Amino acid sequence: MTYCLGILTHQGLVMASDSRSNAGFDQVNVCRKMHTFVHPGERAFAILASGSLSLTQSVIALLRDAFDAGEGLAKAESFYAAARVVGDCIRRVSELDRAALERDGFSFNINLLLGGQVKGERPALSLIYPQGNPLSATHDSPYLQIGEVKYGRPILDRGIVSGTTTLEDAAKYALLSFDATMRSNLTVGPPIEVLLYENDKLEFDRYRRFPADDPELQQIHRQWEQSLRRAVEELPAVEFNSCLP
Amino acid sequence: MTYCLGILTHQGLVMASDSRSNAGFDQVNVCRKMHTFVHPGERAFAILASGSLSLTQSVIALLRDAFDAGEGLAKAESFYAAARVVGDCIRRVSELDRAALERDGFSFNINLLLGGQVKGERPALSLIYPQGNPLSATHDSPYLQIGEVKYGRPILDRGIVSGTTTLEDAAKYALLSFDATMRSNLTVGPPIEVLLYENDKLEFDRYRRFPADDPELQQIHRQWEQSLRRAVEELPAVEFNSCLP
Repeated sequence: MTYCLGILTHQGLVMASDSRSNAGFDQVNVCRKMHTFVHPGERAFAILASGSLSLTQSVIALLRDAFDAGEGLAKAESFYAAARVVGDCIRRVSELDRAALERDGFSFNINLLLGGQVKGERPALSLIYPQGNPLSATHDSPYLQIGEVKYGRPILDRGIVSGTTTLEDAAKYALLSFDATMRSNLTVGPPIEVLLYENDKLEFDRYRRFPADDPELQQIHRQWEQSLRRAVEELPAVEFNSCLP
Repeated sequence: MTYCLGILTHQGLVMASDSRSNAGFDQVNVCRKMHTFVHPGERAFAILASGSLSLTQSVIALLRDAFDAGEGLAKAESFYAAARVVGDCIRRVSELDRAALERDGFSFNINLLLGGQVKGERPALSLIYPQGNPLSATHDSPYLQIGEVKYGRPILDRGIVSGTTTLEDAAKYALLSFDATMRSNLTVGPPIEVLLYENDKLEFDRYRRFPADDPELQQIHRQWEQSLRRAVEELPAVEFNSCLP
């Protein structure tokens, strides 16, 4: 399993991913799921990948080859065009591998998050489905998740407000969302990679990789649990009636 | 979908269930999923049901008939024996309906939570699987969930501590867990029924049904979101490096 999250704020983007790859319970590896494509001052993209590692590696390899040759993400004229470039690569890998996978009962299960900015546009965030079609984050739905999305969702639903939540606070929400997910699903695991992108920077210069024993991450975990318990104690006591159900 | 939750504390039990029943997106009904079986001073059981309504109604009908005749849950000599009585009823309904359901591609999907106490024992909580076998809550795993379990789990994982969390606070955690779940999954909906059982009461006298517009539930929701946002703001700012990923 995997958990990846993108949050679009009025100040910029947060992109975060876990690093656990597993095939069954006894084949567990550390694997980076965050990939960046940057022409400083002109364009900056980050891609987060969930799904079969073999498939996502193929998509990233195709994107990287094209980018290095000045094609694909290197010359997409808009963020939307970039999302279509990524979708086209997914479709090419689908043509290569889908039939063989499905013949043996495996599904073609790539999901990608693309975040970034092309000079002259606002930053944007999209989810690219296994079929290659993109879905955009919006003012009303400012974050997108892939992988094991349920455990880490309530904290985002409660906290993230478009136009209000700062980029710094969005990073904290991202870490809390990962903390909740890792606690409940063993196949989502550290290190957690977090990338902060400020509007119009057109490069990535704020990044952090949190291993399991990162003291700051552990401090956030402890302080958060204490705050939650105090908040529960401060809630008014619930009144119960004496009538039977 | 459904969400039901039982929490076993050192002071007693919390049993909570939603009331939404749906077959597809355009056939949505209100339906109680909490059922009680009580001989005051001798035994008190509450059953929460998830799965096909037709199946869970059949199980409850069998249990009720036996109970009213002084059999089954009315004379089980222990909580474990009561859990076995419930499992046997699930197996009887399985014999009645499973083949016909599976022939048309439906699954036999009953899951039940049984909580309560038999005089002379401690209160207990069990999950009864579709196959009829029971799983008990323990000191290390003091709560059990059925239905849409993921959204409402992180708040329980962070807050519920065996031997420490009071019965009153456990009721608050239950409401927060439902609040998180209802926000993220439309097929879990109000009214929320909550039953508080204090050790050795051997009857149910603390109950509350929270409709969607319950002012106390809305107040808890608002205060909780405010507390969470404040707690996030109080977390230390996360340091990011300038090195590229």
